Amino acid sequence: MGLFTKDIKTMNDLFAHQLQDIYYAEKQLVKALPKMADKATDKQLKEGFLTHLEETKVHVQRLEQVFKGLGFEVKAVDCPAIDGIIEEADEVTSEVADKKVLDAALINCAQAAEHYEIVRYGSLIAWARQLGRNDAAALLQKTLDEEKMTDKKLTSLAEGQVNLRAAS
Amino acid sequence: MGLFTKDIKTMNDLFAHQLQDIYYAEKQLVKALPKMADKATDKQLKEGFLTHLEETKVHVQRLEQVFKGLGFEVKAVDCPAIDGIIEEADEVTSEVADKKVLDAALINCAQAAEHYEIVRYGSLIAWARQLGRNDAAALLQKTLDEEKMTDKKLTSLAEGQVNLRAAS
Repeated sequence: MGLFTKDIKTMNDLFAHQLQDIYYAEKQLVKALPKMADKATDKQLKEGFLTHLEETKVHVQRLEQVFKGLGFEVKAVDCPAIDGIIEEADEVTSEVADKKVLDAALINCAQAAEHYEIVRYGSLIAWARQLGRNDAAALLQKTLDEEKMTDKKLTSLAEGQVNLRAAS
Repeated sequence: MGLFTKDIKTMNDLFAHQLQDIYYAEKQLVKALPKMADKATDKQLKEGFLTHLEETKVHVQRLEQVFKGLGFEVKAVDCPAIDGIIEEADEVTSEVADKKVLDAALINCAQAAEHYEIVRYGSLIAWARQLGRNDAAALLQKTLDEEKMTDKKLTSLAEGQVNLRAAS
């Protein structure tokens, strides 16, 4: 972790630390999403990953804007949670024989990443408001809305053609 | 991973694999929750972790019931995602000076774990239904309902006294 944990003394420190954590996570997802798009066989799923890749690049820039607006150093700290989620996605999906089963597994792994982000952004927004940083909260809210929308699209794909075909 | 990924050929294989994944996760949480309860300073939060520990023990038993009902071997596979979430919780909360900041960090980490479980159980239930395993789906739904309720309680604690005190 970039901040030694003993350095987290105030809500402001915790807020900065979790910003660095989600910044790392978003940057890892920028690397992971093209691989997930490559693996996906369903056309809508593949396009969905590529669309979310573009959104994720904007999320990275938006976080840089938040860091700068708050006068914080733009910095990432290791996030073992997102590393674990991505590692698991790599492992589970790397050699799945059936393409439809692969799509179902990919959706599930992508949703694990989305939910991780939804939790972290939710707290960051609440903390930003408590700290009187409404400008930061508004930027983070834009990203949270997009993460939630992506999660909904993934659920809709899972409930629709991909999983039904996989189960058939 | 317990199953070699190349062994995931059908939806049934993916379902079995993810059952083993969440079984591992629940067992890790049985070990992690008492530590989180020890660290929590807010009385309601501490009690919440202990209540959820008892629920989590039931979730482990319920998964064993699902494995057996389906004729699967009761087995856990490493889940790097939950390991990462727990590792991050340990790191962030281990030496936070201010107790109220610590509570806010604990809630946030616990919610990351809850959301991981909510995603995995959501998919398992959908897959169980597709595979005609409604008995398994019903058992898994009971756990999902409890995970969602725990997440709501954590949000309510975060929005209430804990974070507000931490921010003051």
